[in-house]
Amino acid sequence: MLYSKSYIFTQKETPKDAEIVSHQLMLRSGLIRKSAAGLYSWMPLGKRVLDKVINIIKTEMDKAGALEILPPFVTQGELWQESGRWDTMGKELLRFQDRHDHDLVLGPTHEEAFTQIIKETAQSYQDLPVNLYQINTKFRDEIRPRYGVIRCREFIMKDAYSYDIDDEGLDKSYKAMRKAYLNIFKKSGLVVDPVLADSGKIGGSGSEEFMVPSTVGEEEIVRCTCGYVANVEKADSIISIREAKKETALTKTQTPNIKTIDDLAVFFQCDTKDLVKAFVVEADGKLVMACIRGDLHINEVKLLNLIGANEMVMADPDRIFTELKAPIGFLGAIDCAIDVIADNSILDMQDTVVGANEKDMHYKGVSIKRDCKITKTGDFHLAEAGHQCIQCKEVLSSYKGIEVGHIFKLGKKYTESMGVTVLNQNNQAITPTCGCYGIGVGRIIAAVIEQNADDNGIVFPITIAPYHVAIVPTLVEGELMQEAQNIYELLQEQSIETILDDRNERAGSKFKDADLLGFPIRITVGRSWQEKQEFEVKVRRTGEVLSVAKDKILDTINDLLKQEYGIIK
Amino acid sequence: MLYSKSYIFTQKETPKDAEIVSHQLMLRSGLIRKSAAGLYSWMPLGKRVLDKVINIIKTEMDKAGALEILPPFVTQGELWQESGRWDTMGKELLRFQDRHDHDLVLGPTHEEAFTQIIKETAQSYQDLPVNLYQINTKFRDEIRPRYGVIRCREFIMKDAYSYDIDDEGLDKSYKAMRKAYLNIFKKSGLVVDPVLADSGKIGGSGSEEFMVPSTVGEEEIVRCTCGYVANVEKADSIISIREAKKETALTKTQTPNIKTIDDLAVFFQCDTKDLVKAFVVEADGKLVMACIRGDLHINEVKLLNLIGANEMVMADPDRIFTELKAPIGFLGAIDCAIDVIADNSILDMQDTVVGANEKDMHYKGVSIKRDCKITKTGDFHLAEAGHQCIQCKEVLSSYKGIEVGHIFKLGKKYTESMGVTVLNQNNQAITPTCGCYGIGVGRIIAAVIEQNADDNGIVFPITIAPYHVAIVPTLVEGELMQEAQNIYELLQEQSIETILDDRNERAGSKFKDADLLGFPIRITVGRSWQEKQEFEVKVRRTGEVLSVAKDKILDTINDLLKQEYGIIK
Repeated sequence: MLYSKSYIFTQKETPKDAEIVSHQLMLRSGLIRKSAAGLYSWMPLGKRVLDKVINIIKTEMDKAGALEILPPFVTQGELWQESGRWDTMGKELLRFQDRHDHDLVLGPTHEEAFTQIIKETAQSYQDLPVNLYQINTKFRDEIRPRYGVIRCREFIMKDAYSYDIDDEGLDKSYKAMRKAYLNIFKKSGLVVDPVLADSGKIGGSGSEEFMVPSTVGEEEIVRCTCGYVANVEKADSIISIREAKKETALTKTQTPNIKTIDDLAVFFQCDTKDLVKAFVVEADGKLVMACIRGDLHINEVKLLNLIGANEMVMADPDRIFTELKAPIGFLGAIDCAIDVIADNSILDMQDTVVGANEKDMHYKGVSIKRDCKITKTGDFHLAEAGHQCIQCKEVLSSYKGIEVGHIFKLGKKYTESMGVTVLNQNNQAITPTCGCYGIGVGRIIAAVIEQNADDNGIVFPITIAPYHVAIVPTLVEGELMQEAQNIYELLQEQSIETILDDRNERAGSKFKDADLLGFPIRITVGRSWQEKQEFEVKVRRTGEVLSVAKDKILDTINDLLKQEYGIIK
Repeated sequence: MLYSKSYIFTQKETPKDAEIVSHQLMLRSGLIRKSAAGLYSWMPLGKRVLDKVINIIKTEMDKAGALEILPPFVTQGELWQESGRWDTMGKELLRFQDRHDHDLVLGPTHEEAFTQIIKETAQSYQDLPVNLYQINTKFRDEIRPRYGVIRCREFIMKDAYSYDIDDEGLDKSYKAMRKAYLNIFKKSGLVVDPVLADSGKIGGSGSEEFMVPSTVGEEEIVRCTCGYVANVEKADSIISIREAKKETALTKTQTPNIKTIDDLAVFFQCDTKDLVKAFVVEADGKLVMACIRGDLHINEVKLLNLIGANEMVMADPDRIFTELKAPIGFLGAIDCAIDVIADNSILDMQDTVVGANEKDMHYKGVSIKRDCKITKTGDFHLAEAGHQCIQCKEVLSSYKGIEVGHIFKLGKKYTESMGVTVLNQNNQAITPTCGCYGIGVGRIIAAVIEQNADDNGIVFPITIAPYHVAIVPTLVEGELMQEAQNIYELLQEQSIETILDDRNERAGSKFKDADLLGFPIRITVGRSWQEKQEFEVKVRRTGEVLSVAKDKILDTINDLLKQEYGIIK
């Protein structure tokens, strides 16, 4: 391809509003252009990268036995009403009406649409297992789109849905997808961690996210040297155990305006670990108090599961005051008017402090078991760096990550709510069990760039680079251009993806563009040719520069390409 | 691929509501499934066919120098307001608001989005010409979706937009697209006519539609043996000339309840060709009378252009009565209170009949030139079979067609309204001129099936068949299955796209499915093998059956595949 025919527009300046490296470089290189908030166009070079990632995904999905289909992007509202998500999904689900006032939805995910197809087609165990997938447009009406294609509104996603007659089948389908996902990320040149993820209130027996470690990641992950790694939403950890204090008498004491745990620690001259924090949540409409050790945070998912509710939000302060007669900061589990859920971290505490459910008053000398009425106990602390690993007791560390994929044993949630049944081998109607598996295609590219960039721009892995070789003649006329064209034709004949920078621009600016665009190999036809009839070959990734004679150029390029592929496979 | 792993569901019954062959066969073969009105899912085999057509399109577009991009499907309302189409597009343009109450549109076409990209990128003549295209989802909120994927609401379209600095450049871009389109249709196995099309009120200097002749087509086309072929909306024709009658005196006569042209011909005992029809239209809000010879019909596009209006509808009868004091059926160009546009066909008429603008009254003995006040004259009759060709005067015939593509010299409509300029070689700001080029991907497939089907099902051209060879063992165990698997592996090794029907079904039903699904070649492993160690090879298109020994099977299949490709290229 000729550069002049490729409609490439690079820019030197870092665009305003682009906070992270991948977003900056994707805009500067012109791979994408912003159309409107959270809406991006993939320009010709960007489309080539997108297609390469899509091809990698398709190849691995097909190899795993999944079948590609193309359902409509626009789905009818009825399906969402049938599954119940019409009411539970928030404003991210963009709803509208057609000319006949029928409800339509821009699908952010397609569980309903795929399950509907299975409902209408699969009759018996002989039709299953099946794993159907699409690589299609999605829309999620993000309240604040950011980070370019990482959190945009319209995006390309590969989503797959497997249907099996039993859990054993689902395990197999899930494992096949896990393997395919690892292959996809590897082939895209991406280093990912499969991370234990929360399966939330949907239940199901397993879920993993594929995380790209990144300081700009929106997910928090804890990991241990032993290999344990999990999203904090899911992670378990062992907390340090405090030596129990001696039992002492319960007394009520004034704590004027002492509301936070840090203020209390100062006031009572103790460690936050020796205090108790109380939160009030509204779980399925009912207020519940959750108590946990002063230095710990609540894992909301675990708390929700422990309470056994469907939905949970922090309670409204006015309502708390109405029901507990005390403001936040002075709440506690003694003589409490609502149910109290206690984290295991506080059960053995003695001589501690808890709110007295009265403004500016706390109890001290509290023994939890002696003085508090606990409805339910369990483990709902949030795992954090510094805690111990539940597998090996080593100290956990934590990092941030970008989620590029999620695999999920979904179970029967949708097949049940939408009434899907098939006949098993005994001719009995059973409900199939479902797995769902998503990959953000654009996110992969952004994540690759986060991991593969330097001050000069993108360093594309060979497998997804828009072109493998860029030929840059320092002059676009005379002998240099002729030689550049000769190599161009030579490489084209060998089906090596090559772009010839035929623009009448300064050599320096052409080099800068080639670096910014991240072509793995650059061949310069310039001074070396004039001086010693050799070409300069530069490897983008290593910066290595070779001076190569004309009759060796093809071999050299082939060797370098092999070397670049070697890194991936 | 194994049939049992392909999630294929065929059905014997012709589905209700499917009126045309392609729709019936696409549903019966399970290539597509209906999700909701005008919304279809492409199932695994259908997706394979879709991908093949998309690959053909992409290959030819790239060969023609066009560049693929992927803009968002959802476009912001502002762009449509900027171009003016926000007001002129009807309800087919589906509009809605996001969570921030911003107007959004599901793009039925992307002139605005592409022109915006050009506006923001192209600086000078050096950046042009460029031809950008997408193969992407489109949505058109059809009031009555029908004919399956031919007129559905969500569909895949390839749309391209070229931008040139002058008309000469546009000509070149247009011709390149015309050639690419002919290649695309040919490679898809489709016989099309490029047909002169109307460029409507947008103007522009040329437009062609690619029509697939079909009795279920929604477009009417006239053609001549000399090669002239045009959409009736665009077509010109020569009408028979009537010998002028002698001049005679004008008299008013009672015509009680004689309203139609046929009734008048009976009443006055003459040919409809000797009478004048009058229509009243509302053009940009103003009533205008159009008069034409009694046997002819009005070409609304030509009449609109002649009047010079932007919008035109048939006038409301009440308003006609208010302004002309007479009901429809008795209107005429004598003493008429509104402007009268006369078709050339009536100008020389004498001793004819026109309405008297009074209920139950006509004038007879009318000489048009002597008695009528004509505001403007011109040619706005609709070309019809039986008229003469304007090129060679032979008699025209007509047929119906399905439009599968449209190429269009759009000109500066959008670049002007959206304020796009680039610098020309003299450093002057000029407005680029645009061409737009659309192909309906799903429509190609439906049209191919309309042209390539028989009583047993689809007869896929080899280039877009989901698989090239189907192997059908009559028993799925023992020696027959073993031999079938051997051939399957043999063909797979040769990268021949093969499906092995491993279902434990009656042979007859497997044959029926293979025929319905239209695989070009079927290999049966059954009685012939048992009796004489040969395979039965059947060509779907011709019905030809060969008996082939094991060691000849690969050569035979390769020969037949070559033969099938030979038909296309």
